[in-house]
Amino acid sequence: MATQVSIPKGTRDFGPEEMTKRNYIFNTIKTVFNKYGYSPIETPAMETLATLMGKYGEEGDKLLFKILNSGNYLNKIEDTDLDENNLAKITNKISEKGLRYDLTVPFARFVVQHRNEITFPFKRYQIQPVWRADKPQKGRYREFFQCDVDVIGSKSLLNEFELIQIIDEVFKKLDINVTIKINNRKILAGIAEVIGESDKFIPITVAIDKIEKAGLEKVISDLKEKGLSDNAINKLKPVLEIKRNTKKSIYFLEGMLSESETGMKGIEEIKKVFSYTNMFEFKANIELDLSLARGLNYYTGAIFEVKSDDVEIGSICGGGRYDNLTEVFGMKDISGVGVSFGADRIYDVMSQLDNFPKEANKTTDVLFVNFGANEEAKCLEIANDLRANGLSCEVFPQKAKLDKQFKYANNKNIPFVIVLGEEEIKSGKPAVKNMITGQQ
Amino acid sequence: MATQVSIPKGTRDFGPEEMTKRNYIFNTIKTVFNKYGYSPIETPAMETLATLMGKYGEEGDKLLFKILNSGNYLNKIEDTDLDENNLAKITNKISEKGLRYDLTVPFARFVVQHRNEITFPFKRYQIQPVWRADKPQKGRYREFFQCDVDVIGSKSLLNEFELIQIIDEVFKKLDINVTIKINNRKILAGIAEVIGESDKFIPITVAIDKIEKAGLEKVISDLKEKGLSDNAINKLKPVLEIKRNTKKSIYFLEGMLSESETGMKGIEEIKKVFSYTNMFEFKANIELDLSLARGLNYYTGAIFEVKSDDVEIGSICGGGRYDNLTEVFGMKDISGVGVSFGADRIYDVMSQLDNFPKEANKTTDVLFVNFGANEEAKCLEIANDLRANGLSCEVFPQKAKLDKQFKYANNKNIPFVIVLGEEEIKSGKPAVKNMITGQQ
Repeated sequence: MATQVSIPKGTRDFGPEEMTKRNYIFNTIKTVFNKYGYSPIETPAMETLATLMGKYGEEGDKLLFKILNSGNYLNKIEDTDLDENNLAKITNKISEKGLRYDLTVPFARFVVQHRNEITFPFKRYQIQPVWRADKPQKGRYREFFQCDVDVIGSKSLLNEFELIQIIDEVFKKLDINVTIKINNRKILAGIAEVIGESDKFIPITVAIDKIEKAGLEKVISDLKEKGLSDNAINKLKPVLEIKRNTKKSIYFLEGMLSESETGMKGIEEIKKVFSYTNMFEFKANIELDLSLARGLNYYTGAIFEVKSDDVEIGSICGGGRYDNLTEVFGMKDISGVGVSFGADRIYDVMSQLDNFPKEANKTTDVLFVNFGANEEAKCLEIANDLRANGLSCEVFPQKAKLDKQFKYANNKNIPFVIVLGEEEIKSGKPAVKNMITGQQ
Repeated sequence: MATQVSIPKGTRDFGPEEMTKRNYIFNTIKTVFNKYGYSPIETPAMETLATLMGKYGEEGDKLLFKILNSGNYLNKIEDTDLDENNLAKITNKISEKGLRYDLTVPFARFVVQHRNEITFPFKRYQIQPVWRADKPQKGRYREFFQCDVDVIGSKSLLNEFELIQIIDEVFKKLDINVTIKINNRKILAGIAEVIGESDKFIPITVAIDKIEKAGLEKVISDLKEKGLSDNAINKLKPVLEIKRNTKKSIYFLEGMLSESETGMKGIEEIKKVFSYTNMFEFKANIELDLSLARGLNYYTGAIFEVKSDDVEIGSICGGGRYDNLTEVFGMKDISGVGVSFGADRIYDVMSQLDNFPKEANKTTDVLFVNFGANEEAKCLEIANDLRANGLSCEVFPQKAKLDKQFKYANNKNIPFVIVLGEEEIKSGKPAVKNMITGQQ
């Protein structure tokens, strides 16, 4: 009667070894967040569809996992609904909840719902899984974890700087060399303005956002397709060609954007952020990257993206400032800024670099071999003492062949095995085997 | 445009203060689990309905949250399905995944699916939310956390003892006085046998399980209703009346169950477990409670339940031994034993006893008052030094009125505020205010 045993596609089990490594990443990130005064919150896995729908575009609505109403969910359905075959209408009648798609929208909902209990500026972090009904593929899952850190209710650019400090410290602790790319949506808006294509701001950012993957030629042909004039494209081209030189970029922009108020505000913000970063030393490279645009439209100021210098993979952290995130829930004029660490990609980078500390793989410190009832009692006693001194101990639960018990220690990466048989108890000298060196 | 902001009924947001307290409980539990060599695993929130359905009884199937298939989920539905109005059949065609209902069934599925990678005996713990479409009420949620610890693949009663050690240590660390009640399903089966009602074993356990809430009279009238003979009830009554005396209970049972092989096996197991507990000192009361039955039918040996001695609330931890949990997934003869800690009830007990350490409520150690750009630079420098020494620091993100900044520190329970204005920088002596004592 072997039932088929499997889990839904795009989801994963995490065994002890993966868990220990994942926790190493999460704990490192949390420790840094806490050091800068950010506090944890958690929101429910399920949100109402009223909260979720319409926040991620039409495509996003389709990718939401929707939950069937309990009880007789069919009782609101009428024959005419079925004749119409209007999927959205029927869905609306049989489902009113969905699984969260990211941590940003639940955070905005949380802030609005708890506005009277929250002390602003509100510095929070949130590490939880999110779910998307995306086509699963290598490195893309239907359940994955996000680690978001945000401060909301303060317009100060010191917050942007603090996030840079946090990013630098996290990746220093994880021993990953990174480049932190910074840009500002106001600069991009200014550029759209001075090339005379303000109304095409969104298509321009979407196109620019693809430059790294698709290349300059493709971006330009995309922009032409979207109706940008040759004149506009000629003005835009030099912006996309300057790269990796913060000073030069700013100098260039100050000339180009002098007529755009929004653009000049963006430059001022960028300069302020770099004036902070120039005050301290960082392990990360920090640079202005004018080709950085971020796909999400709610960003209104600074935008960030972090890339590993040594492993070819997409961005491992990203975010930015948003001025109107809570507006859709009825709370205006509350600006925030935040970044999200991509735990799964960071895990992949750590694995490729072999960066997990050896201890991250260890579960138990000491195993006591079990020789039967008499010896066991003595082992339990010593194990208790060792535990009281902070060691993690196991007494093998039953008498078994020695090699079986040693194999168990080996498989679990237990570094020390204590052999306490009749002889050893008599002599008062337990044999301790170091499983790494093999020494007795 | 104030959209209605709410979360699904029966779910909760956890703000920073609740999170810090909840993490205190989770971390205490995890530390103890780790000390005994248990390793963490995690399974996906969604399982296939093939895994979940039929494992929790008919009622449980109804309480599963089911997830609508992605895409055009209607395309398998035929007109005849709708005419029949067969809810189960339709559900089956539009949904193939559900949210996990507990951690036990996913664990059994995990063990079977990963049998070739697992080292047995497999000692795992799992702390994750579960979801049930129960009617929400005080203390009962639709999303709540379970903390399960199990060892599977060993029949040794040393495992039962180890779980008792773990329970004792967890509640000692949390400073909650508890009584650990133990019974054995084999003893209950033996009792059913000798009173001549073996075929009514399940109804008998279900009835006994209610004795604490409903009282002896009610249990007896329930048993009559279920068709137990007066003779059987008269034999059963003394068992239900002995209480809170382990030695007397065992003596009584040895007489009563002498003819029942199963019953005598149960007594032998109980005696072995108590022979272990008698070897060491425990803070918890540990007692044999013959009226303890546990509702779940998969238990086959020892059963446990833990009650707070000082706070009136249901059991805060419970579990037992199961011999056939993985059989339904096609893997026979693998015995395990485990308990589950009820994090939400433990939270309530901790709150009522005011047991959370004061530090559990603290987020940031030090706040630097912000007087503007010049002073800020100095503050950032010192904050960096303090962070390097392990302190959690915030620099208030912008210049603001002093009382606003102090109120911020107060609301966040920040114990120290550093005032570093122009004067203090000149004199080289920052003013430090202790927010608890009020001292400068």
